[in-house]
Amino acid sequence: MADVLRKEQFILPEGVIYLDGNSLGPMPVSVPARVSGVMNEEWAQMLIRGWNQAGWMAMPTEVGDAVGRLIGAPAGSVVMGDTLSIKVYQALAAAVKMRPDRRVILSDTGNFPSDLYIAEGLVGLLGQGYELRKVAPEEVADAIDDSVAVVMLTEVDYRTGRKHEMKPMTEAAHAAGAVMVWDLAHSAGALPVDLAGSNCEFAVGCTYKYLNGGPGAPAFIYVRPDLADQAEPALSGWLGHRAPFDFDLDYAPGKGIERMRVGTPPILQMAALQEAMKVWEGVDMNDLRAASVELQEQFIEEVEKAVPQLTLASPRDAAVRGSQVSFRFEHGYAAMQALIHRGVIGDFRAPDIMRFGFTPLYLDADDVSAAVAIMRDVMENELWDVDAYKVRGRVT
Amino acid sequence: MADVLRKEQFILPEGVIYLDGNSLGPMPVSVPARVSGVMNEEWAQMLIRGWNQAGWMAMPTEVGDAVGRLIGAPAGSVVMGDTLSIKVYQALAAAVKMRPDRRVILSDTGNFPSDLYIAEGLVGLLGQGYELRKVAPEEVADAIDDSVAVVMLTEVDYRTGRKHEMKPMTEAAHAAGAVMVWDLAHSAGALPVDLAGSNCEFAVGCTYKYLNGGPGAPAFIYVRPDLADQAEPALSGWLGHRAPFDFDLDYAPGKGIERMRVGTPPILQMAALQEAMKVWEGVDMNDLRAASVELQEQFIEEVEKAVPQLTLASPRDAAVRGSQVSFRFEHGYAAMQALIHRGVIGDFRAPDIMRFGFTPLYLDADDVSAAVAIMRDVMENELWDVDAYKVRGRVT
Repeated sequence: MADVLRKEQFILPEGVIYLDGNSLGPMPVSVPARVSGVMNEEWAQMLIRGWNQAGWMAMPTEVGDAVGRLIGAPAGSVVMGDTLSIKVYQALAAAVKMRPDRRVILSDTGNFPSDLYIAEGLVGLLGQGYELRKVAPEEVADAIDDSVAVVMLTEVDYRTGRKHEMKPMTEAAHAAGAVMVWDLAHSAGALPVDLAGSNCEFAVGCTYKYLNGGPGAPAFIYVRPDLADQAEPALSGWLGHRAPFDFDLDYAPGKGIERMRVGTPPILQMAALQEAMKVWEGVDMNDLRAASVELQEQFIEEVEKAVPQLTLASPRDAAVRGSQVSFRFEHGYAAMQALIHRGVIGDFRAPDIMRFGFTPLYLDADDVSAAVAIMRDVMENELWDVDAYKVRGRVT
Repeated sequence: MADVLRKEQFILPEGVIYLDGNSLGPMPVSVPARVSGVMNEEWAQMLIRGWNQAGWMAMPTEVGDAVGRLIGAPAGSVVMGDTLSIKVYQALAAAVKMRPDRRVILSDTGNFPSDLYIAEGLVGLLGQGYELRKVAPEEVADAIDDSVAVVMLTEVDYRTGRKHEMKPMTEAAHAAGAVMVWDLAHSAGALPVDLAGSNCEFAVGCTYKYLNGGPGAPAFIYVRPDLADQAEPALSGWLGHRAPFDFDLDYAPGKGIERMRVGTPPILQMAALQEAMKVWEGVDMNDLRAASVELQEQFIEEVEKAVPQLTLASPRDAAVRGSQVSFRFEHGYAAMQALIHRGVIGDFRAPDIMRFGFTPLYLDADDVSAAVAIMRDVMENELWDVDAYKVRGRVT
């Protein structure tokens, strides 16, 4: 197994052990120079000419290809832009149009709420009996019937790290005649994804987590190549038009994945992300996965020994877990605040989940041990009322 | 009239006269330091904590207030995010829901194509007899009847600069029971806008033109305050939820304009824009307008004298013209390429429009005269075949 550790390519603040790269990845060292270059040499000097001279216009598909390489998507099948919520909307709207005789979008209660909200907004707008149906994650497969137009799932549960199996679930959806939409928010850059092999029609994801694109980095959308020229874009913006600069009065969708572009792309964010993607050069996703599992197993073992107050909320079987480990703790919010004060940064998800992300590009076994030692110290010495786990004054 | 000229606050490349600030504004001097600060001191050092510590989460409404001040929108009525095309979709989707018994979105053939495309996508998704009706700009008022749910117009025509009158047009829409949506892409930062006084329900716009926010800067949406708590968001993303961090499974729209937020905001772009908005401190929009009209009148007069091959495409009456002047010329594309080679940067819009934007923050009368002198020289000496206006080899 090749070593994927490359701490020197990231800015990691002194005194911090960062276990929240599953929420916002740290800044790759080379990003500020790239973004400054875009500002000072491109925007300032080229002005409007930057769209062609600096290649801004091509960035959404170029960066899409770079992301695609990490998730098993062929070149030309992924495009960047907007936010993940917008990309979910695009995928769902195009997907329901592919099954005009069906009315149900099926998802699960472990999905990220924004995906559910976006589906709710879409079915509300469509009316006509459209419906969002939510079942427990383990009940999805059984709930796919011939009323279901679209199955929309997030591969890795944002709270617990529980993992759906993409290929069999997609097969189940297809067997019932449904279209499959995968959200890879906690997968892209976290574990190997074989998007083409899964045979799903659509996938979406964000890039500010494991891909380290920065706060509010652009999202991505994948359309299966054989369908890309058929997908009807609901968000039919001018940069998805076949010939945007002809300024026709009527919309004609662009070729393939280009039609999933909407408006003018955010070039500073696009450049930051493009630069951040260089960190991945030479990383084999299977090596990354092995290193991630190793760090997670070490963390679970050490936490269960040193901090018995916490209860594992993630699957114990690494094979069905993403790249995070979550523990339940009644006073998890306060405990996480105390940990953050001590430089161990994870995060909290209501009602009681303490969440820790494992990112082998910039985390090693020593970091894990150091984090657990601080966790034990916080639980023993900073939560003064042992029974109630009330936290000292400075943490609220 | 107070002088609004402040060239020293912009980077303007040597040898360039920039008449394309209506397409992409130049970079304000202080932007790179601000964006670098967000990268190096906030993202890199605060990591996930930046959302609260650095105030990232509040930026869409804070910057919205700064934009609102320039367009006559009260505090708390404007929010930033996404692209203009997405904001058009949000406004239209919410607007049609306010008139459930009507089926027509009325717009004009002078509207920016993306607005029309987005409306086309929306009516296509809605089905049920929804329709986008396009008439000539001068026929809009007469075309508003009681079948019209929404009138959607861009105040200033992107090609000719022709200006609709917001207040009477909004009154006409309301008299017929329609909802009014204004696109202010070529208005915000270009001329005084009295959004509250117009009484329109929705307005949208972009910030990379006259507001100098940079390539792909976030767009804005305004909802009239008395309606903000009723507007139904079709793009119901998590950051528009009443309590995003409760992670409820059901969507509940946020208070007022907050519900028009969708996904995670692009913080680098947001910071660039916020910094760029500081340029406007102390600028009175009436002074800006007076200076803009003066530059435009000078330009028209000098061009018509020195470059008789061009035909004015913009209204001759400054009162019904935005902050740009367009000329028709059969070989306008080639001529504009030749001009750009000589450092006079305007742009071209098919089929034959040469477009020049006037931005008194960084343009003065000497710039206008110098630009016209170069235009004359190009037309006399670089377009070698006077009859056909074919261009020399280096320009294609």
